Amino acid sequence: MKLSEIAQKTGASFDGEDIEIFALNSLKNANKAELTYCDGEKNAKFISGSNAGAILVTKNLLEFVPSGMTALVCDNPHLAFAILSKDYAKPLFCEKKDSSIDPSANIMPNVYIGSNVVVGENTVIMAGAFLGDNVKIGKNCIIHPNVVIYNDCIVGDECHLLANCVIGSDGFGYAHTKTGEHVKIYHNGNVVLGNYVEIGACTTIDRGVFESTIVADFSKVDNLVQIGHNCELGMGCLIVSQTGLAGSTILGRNVVMGGQSGSAGHVSVGDFAQVAARGGVSKNLEGGKKYAGAYPIMELAEQFKLQAKISRFFKKK
Amino acid sequence: MKLSEIAQKTGASFDGEDIEIFALNSLKNANKAELTYCDGEKNAKFISGSNAGAILVTKNLLEFVPSGMTALVCDNPHLAFAILSKDYAKPLFCEKKDSSIDPSANIMPNVYIGSNVVVGENTVIMAGAFLGDNVKIGKNCIIHPNVVIYNDCIVGDECHLLANCVIGSDGFGYAHTKTGEHVKIYHNGNVVLGNYVEIGACTTIDRGVFESTIVADFSKVDNLVQIGHNCELGMGCLIVSQTGLAGSTILGRNVVMGGQSGSAGHVSVGDFAQVAARGGVSKNLEGGKKYAGAYPIMELAEQFKLQAKISRFFKKK
Amino acid sequence: MKLSEIAQKTGASFDGEDIEIFALNSLKNANKAELTYCDGEKNAKFISGSNAGAILVTKNLLEFVPSGMTALVCDNPHLAFAILSKDYAKPLFCEKKDSSIDPSANIMPNVYIGSNVVVGENTVIMAGAFLGDNVKIGKNCIIHPNVVIYNDCIVGDECHLLANCVIGSDGFGYAHTKTGEHVKIYHNGNVVLGNYVEIGACTTIDRGVFESTIVADFSKVDNLVQIGHNCELGMGCLIVSQTGLAGSTILGRNVVMGGQSGSAGHVSVGDFAQVAARGGVSKNLEGGKKYAGAYPIMELAEQFKLQAKISRFFKKK
Repeated sequence: MKLSEIAQKTGASFDGEDIEIFALNSLKNANKAELTYCDGEKNAKFISGSNAGAILVTKNLLEFVPSGMTALVCDNPHLAFAILSKDYAKPLFCEKKDSSIDPSANIMPNVYIGSNVVVGENTVIMAGAFLGDNVKIGKNCIIHPNVVIYNDCIVGDECHLLANCVIGSDGFGYAHTKTGEHVKIYHNGNVVLGNYVEIGACTTIDRGVFESTIVADFSKVDNLVQIGHNCELGMGCLIVSQTGLAGSTILGRNVVMGGQSGSAGHVSVGDFAQVAARGGVSKNLEGGKKYAGAYPIMELAEQFKLQAKISRFFKKK
Repeated sequence: MKLSEIAQKTGASFDGEDIEIFALNSLKNANKAELTYCDGEKNAKFISGSNAGAILVTKNLLEFVPSGMTALVCDNPHLAFAILSKDYAKPLFCEKKDSSIDPSANIMPNVYIGSNVVVGENTVIMAGAFLGDNVKIGKNCIIHPNVVIYNDCIVGDECHLLANCVIGSDGFGYAHTKTGEHVKIYHNGNVVLGNYVEIGACTTIDRGVFESTIVADFSKVDNLVQIGHNCELGMGCLIVSQTGLAGSTILGRNVVMGGQSGSAGHVSVGDFAQVAARGGVSKNLEGGKKYAGAYPIMELAEQFKLQAKISRFFKKK
Repeated sequence: MKLSEIAQKTGASFDGEDIEIFALNSLKNANKAELTYCDGEKNAKFISGSNAGAILVTKNLLEFVPSGMTALVCDNPHLAFAILSKDYAKPLFCEKKDSSIDPSANIMPNVYIGSNVVVGENTVIMAGAFLGDNVKIGKNCIIHPNVVIYNDCIVGDECHLLANCVIGSDGFGYAHTKTGEHVKIYHNGNVVLGNYVEIGACTTIDRGVFESTIVADFSKVDNLVQIGHNCELGMGCLIVSQTGLAGSTILGRNVVMGGQSGSAGHVSVGDFAQVAARGGVSKNLEGGKKYAGAYPIMELAEQFKLQAKISRFFKKK
């Protein structure tokens, strides 16, 4: 789509060359043929470092746009981006190409294998599983019954994906109109699972908007866990059942999230930190410590003390 | 079944004509050929307005039953109703009728399509999906892999149902015997999704007992959410991951439920209200405000203040 | 595998006859041809009562090992056991044997039926379901679409398993190396569901390590519930949506767990106890009482009083 078309579609205005835009991308990764957007003042400082060919911005951020990057000025860049994301979404099915299934792999009945799929040595794909286009699965994996792996996702070696888990669903991302409608942001990223990763039954891992949601080597995720778009889990994390990680949560290595714990989006947890069951990570947490509490979260020992104080104090009242 | 048979089956007694009962229904919607029940004094005031042909009641509520409605008196009307619900349940499979699949629709392999199903223009039904009898799906929808849509459910236009979600499962409703058994209430209602609705991966939406569980236009539901029987979500609601709405929760328009939030049954939340992550809606909430807290829930600002006071107070102790 | 091979594989040392070990098993159930392990001092008292042929122990527990049981001394018996569990895991597919499907059973399309499966009278197996090897299902059951029942699991009569639930997945059990890797414990137990059991949509029930995870007659489990390995639910329990029971939770009969409640592992709840929504069972609870609270849990009335006191006290501050 040309910038002029994009401007018309989104109600944006621009000065400059009417270049062709081949894709949408993040501020960080967009190139000269791609369009990005800046949503709010807190990200304005990243504009000058971007290599995007064009950017959707509000008028007040215009001053941050460097020469060589075309500004498309509009009221709501996030909404404009969402509207465009449908046009730039990857098609539901890619061009038909042969898949490469290792002869030693065991593909059970009623499995769907898309186009350009790779399945490695000795991997078992159990009945009812769905492997979307361009999915790559390493060796010695077991993809259990009725698992769904969406287009473009990558699974390392020696992984176990338990029954009915879903890898690579679209994230829960919408822009909002003034009249209260929500415009879907189509997600073009993927999910990348390392080696020796285990994903529990009925667990869901959403794909990134542009980039990858990552679960690094040796991480183990229990049943019914939600991992939002663009999360990154370091090596050897343990995520206990019914935990929910909101989008862009970053866990270091060997982080433990107890059962039914959760995180707000865009927070990070340091290496070897442990969050107790039901803990709610609402801010960045230093590594190497134990934490507990829904709100506010604090160090485990402190939380125990606080609860004991509360009990003691009100017993007398 | 005739009233005499029903009376015998449930241990109820009645005076009057032995009419044939064709269905069970709610106090509100039952007609002259249908049987309803009244469970407890708080609903007694609705009896006189009902058009039911007959009603299961306890002896003490007999006075509320108008002339022209036959009273079946028993100790536990809810239990009697549950016992009968099996007899009046719709059969698992309806009479074989042709389905109407638009020629432009794309039905992938291993899809099950029941009897009398309608699939609209350009809709894609991905591999492994299940469409029960009488299911109607509008145009431009994507029903993702391994989605299950039970009998009689209706999906509007432009909807996305993500992998492994379940639409129209029986609600969690039982009547209890004196000896601690639970008698299943068969659910004859359905689920109705409006237009532009998105349902997340592994999310479950139960059908109504008699009527519909409703998700109105533009509402978006994240992964691993539970929506109980007879819930009604207004237009443009956003339900974040792992939220659980108990039966008969009523949300106005553009209500936001944060991650891992919940509601008790039979509560309502007003238009544009926002419930923070982990919020527990235990009572009706006015619209246009932000709320937080597990128990008791209160306005967000108030909750923040309370938590700060608690922290400050006990720091000194 | 002979003890000498086991010793070499795990870095353990032993004195005595180099017997053949045919299986791994628990302290309680291991026989003379089986190997068990003792993990920590608190279980040391059970060693002398075990009939195991051999045991993995740390040096300091050597004194508890009776004569006639060979001790394999190592630094981390739990890790040694996890390493061996892969070798002793049942194969993914058992030897091909005929299944026994009652002629009155209805097997819908795209169902996978493994080896040596039994399906009883009038049972319906809906489309996309997966029945692993040796699965036994009683009569008058409905196994809904896309349900996965893993190898060796047993389902009684009159059960309803709702869409996309998963019965018998491996539990979330790992041993940990010094360098932060997690070694999977392969689970050879199963899940046993009694009669008149109902399991909700997208609910997951993990198999026991050696023994069975049990859900007794008349128990009803709602949608999106997690039941960990080796849990035991007594008769007539009601487990409301999104509850999570950690491994080895023992519920008596007619226990009610409210929505989004949870339990820590290795706790028990007495007969007829009721845990309110969001309650967190962190210790053993007596039967016949109502409980509430995330941490600490207490009797419901007490919790209400405490919350009221807190509100009142801080209103004045």
